[in-house]
Amino acid sequence: MTVTVFEHDHLLSERAKARSFSHFSQGPTDGAPEGFKPHPKPLALHWGMPNPGFFPIDSIDVNLVDYPFQKSLSLPTTNASVESLIPQGKSTGRSVTIAKKEDDADIIDISRGLQYSEVEGLPQLRQFARDFIKRTHAPAYSDWDVIITTGAGDGLNKSADLILDPEDVILIEEFTFSPFLSNVKANGGIAVPLKLNLDAESGPLGLDIDYLQNLLENWSELKPGLKKPKAIYTIPTGQNPTGVTQPVELRRKVYDLAVKHDFIILEDDPYGYLALPKYSKPEGLLRLGQFLEIDEYLESHLTPSYLTLDTTGRVVRIETFSKLFAPGLRLGFIVAQKRAIDVIGKYAALVTRSPSGTSQLIVQNVIQKKFGGVDGWIEWILKMRVTYAHRRDVLLSQFYESDAYKKGYLDVIDPSAGMFASVIIKFPEGTTDADAKTKLLNWKFVAFGVGVVPGANMAVDKDFSAERSNFYRITFAPANDDEELTEAGQRFVGAVEEFFEKGLKF
Amino acid sequence: MTVTVFEHDHLLSERAKARSFSHFSQGPTDGAPEGFKPHPKPLALHWGMPNPGFFPIDSIDVNLVDYPFQKSLSLPTTNASVESLIPQGKSTGRSVTIAKKEDDADIIDISRGLQYSEVEGLPQLRQFARDFIKRTHAPAYSDWDVIITTGAGDGLNKSADLILDPEDVILIEEFTFSPFLSNVKANGGIAVPLKLNLDAESGPLGLDIDYLQNLLENWSELKPGLKKPKAIYTIPTGQNPTGVTQPVELRRKVYDLAVKHDFIILEDDPYGYLALPKYSKPEGLLRLGQFLEIDEYLESHLTPSYLTLDTTGRVVRIETFSKLFAPGLRLGFIVAQKRAIDVIGKYAALVTRSPSGTSQLIVQNVIQKKFGGVDGWIEWILKMRVTYAHRRDVLLSQFYESDAYKKGYLDVIDPSAGMFASVIIKFPEGTTDADAKTKLLNWKFVAFGVGVVPGANMAVDKDFSAERSNFYRITFAPANDDEELTEAGQRFVGAVEEFFEKGLKF
Repeated sequence: MTVTVFEHDHLLSERAKARSFSHFSQGPTDGAPEGFKPHPKPLALHWGMPNPGFFPIDSIDVNLVDYPFQKSLSLPTTNASVESLIPQGKSTGRSVTIAKKEDDADIIDISRGLQYSEVEGLPQLRQFARDFIKRTHAPAYSDWDVIITTGAGDGLNKSADLILDPEDVILIEEFTFSPFLSNVKANGGIAVPLKLNLDAESGPLGLDIDYLQNLLENWSELKPGLKKPKAIYTIPTGQNPTGVTQPVELRRKVYDLAVKHDFIILEDDPYGYLALPKYSKPEGLLRLGQFLEIDEYLESHLTPSYLTLDTTGRVVRIETFSKLFAPGLRLGFIVAQKRAIDVIGKYAALVTRSPSGTSQLIVQNVIQKKFGGVDGWIEWILKMRVTYAHRRDVLLSQFYESDAYKKGYLDVIDPSAGMFASVIIKFPEGTTDADAKTKLLNWKFVAFGVGVVPGANMAVDKDFSAERSNFYRITFAPANDDEELTEAGQRFVGAVEEFFEKGLKF
Repeated sequence: MTVTVFEHDHLLSERAKARSFSHFSQGPTDGAPEGFKPHPKPLALHWGMPNPGFFPIDSIDVNLVDYPFQKSLSLPTTNASVESLIPQGKSTGRSVTIAKKEDDADIIDISRGLQYSEVEGLPQLRQFARDFIKRTHAPAYSDWDVIITTGAGDGLNKSADLILDPEDVILIEEFTFSPFLSNVKANGGIAVPLKLNLDAESGPLGLDIDYLQNLLENWSELKPGLKKPKAIYTIPTGQNPTGVTQPVELRRKVYDLAVKHDFIILEDDPYGYLALPKYSKPEGLLRLGQFLEIDEYLESHLTPSYLTLDTTGRVVRIETFSKLFAPGLRLGFIVAQKRAIDVIGKYAALVTRSPSGTSQLIVQNVIQKKFGGVDGWIEWILKMRVTYAHRRDVLLSQFYESDAYKKGYLDVIDPSAGMFASVIIKFPEGTTDADAKTKLLNWKFVAFGVGVVPGANMAVDKDFSAERSNFYRITFAPANDDEELTEAGQRFVGAVEEFFEKGLKF
């Protein structure tokens, strides 16, 4: 259960490993003269830090809700009032005060949170992140650590920098969170797409493990001139854009391949905690009371991270507070072996500097004071989960019950986690110009007034994925209410139906 | 007064210019079919943004002070109570509430500030930054803009990326904010130090304009093999570490050289707004009422930025909210010609993403609701300025009135802005091993219990600056109170005196 030596230095970029950092304010370190004794209570004339007495802010009160959409008129709820659904004995306080000075070691006070702080993140929030990972996805080895980032985008950028030198290869699901490709490119890396199966009739959905295995075992023939991959970048839970989740057995196979072929697994998991039950036809109103017990959720619903399989310290997991707390925080964290975290820390020290202290103090204090720590935070996630499941059901019901579906014009991938679903457009057999047809259909959606993401927009390599680009990513995250979701779904299926009925013409 | 074409593209890095960005969620842009009409009220199934109803935060109250250190017991004030010093008719409200939804266009509400937002910064805060610069340092041309950064460190990183390709040269004051050297190095740039004069007896303090002019005019002989410089990096006001401010006449000469030799001026100005009066012996207690009128401050105290001389759009100015509001915000901005801002925006889009919305909403709402906009913010700065001036006086008085000063062991550069002063160690004539002596003296300071920054720690090139490294940067920013500043100053001079009396031995 311990990795004492990080044995993957050859998989880290030369650029990242070469960085070193020492601050100009550091005192002398060598050549202490005889008789030298440090002063027991030194005073600082060196750090250019304004005293917290200069801050215009004395304290901050954060006023909170107990449930998502609690204060919104637009949330349909059961007849029972929200108040009555708050479990007995739980915090009912709605407001959290953050004072200039606080004594509780778990709390980030104003004088600390608004000051210059550690590039790795404030110690209190780092500790929360460690505790949270221990509870949810405990790594299978001991010498791991976390570093706070300024959100998943920053986490991805730092991870790409950690691994990729020019000409280095990284495997990526063929449809992916495409901004990561910019991070790969910025470091001179080469992205090689991995086939996904999006047709339920031809095998398990998602990552095609046979394709991956064959690619790795015949690399030099299949990818002549390319170095063997240093890493795989995967969004294993509620994959973006497809919504598919890799089962544990599949993860084990991928992990074994990573060990055998010696590469790192970059696991991007922005919303995997939103593990969703199977679609069921929504029965009118959201039932807020129906959330799981924490242990049941952790044991039977949350798909375990690659970290839980990681006996060799080769998984780099990227998390974010964007989807579970708020995107504007620009706050997330990376979990990895200590050596990798240390190398990432140098990038932070030299390039990005510290994450926002304002965001850190708000998140940490809300989690500690309002939610009461890790388990309270998971309870909040479970409330988010119920709300997302309901929204998913409302949106997908418009598809499953549409004429377009019944006539076989489209199919839906019911997501098992996250906030995205895929709608497959089932072009008639023999359609040869699906790409041109899809481009036309894109305009149809604009005419019908529904914003969608064509699968092709998120392809690593449009040519490689041409045959599998006949789908759209849709999301139930931004809508204001059920009515809006319903209307948006109707517009989508209406556009598809008209397009098909006109013979795949506008 | 207008620059219509940015004529400095050859001074920008190829790397920065090559970046392009388009989001995968963007709708179709070309090939609209005949008869296409966009829907008047589109609904979104494309953006992966959680509805603000998912945020646990309903509102935030920020509780403020009217004066720095107002709530601190450790601030000495006049006999008059602070309350009586609040100017008539000014806001006396101490608390600012930020609601989930607000109608005022200047306000960033929770639903906006905690959401994904523009990589260039939220429009409201960008507009404030523009208005603030118009009031304080209006550029001499019209097509400039601003971009919000995650603090000055991020501003410096983005500026280095903007300009430097491998082998590109940048001129830097020989003692400088040395972390910028890491940004230069990360882009393969070459830093060439510029001589500073730190000896009041041999000419004006600070940047040696004759050295600069000679260097530029004889570049190929003096720096054989090096490209001509693309930029100068300067901290013109309250220079770090020396505390010296470039007079306007000097700035004009530097600017003329920039035009003649075609380079960009990177102006780093983290605390120049803290324009300080000349040192005067502190008369006991801080007089909080003694702050300037805004117009007097702007006309006669604040040294104008290089922007005010800039008729050719070649100044890039880096600001931060760290020193005037709080460092933990990780918030600042860059002012430059629109094309340069646009290029920097691509870096933000692809690498750093958006600044913290939490920080932006707090700063913007405090400035608008509490301070009432630009002029109210300047009034806050004037209160900061008085407090810093007092602290400077308290600290420097310990030097000017010391035996070490009277015996000629040290001299002080009284800073005309900012939070740093320099103490020159006046080694006896004929001291040949000043470097070794300084290293020994460093240990003396640790033994006496006072943290200082040796000038050498902030040198671009230790060898180039060896003769001028006999100084220490001290700051009056972090101390808790006058007593602490006094004690720290006494420890400093005590260490120097003992060191000299022992014959420059420990």
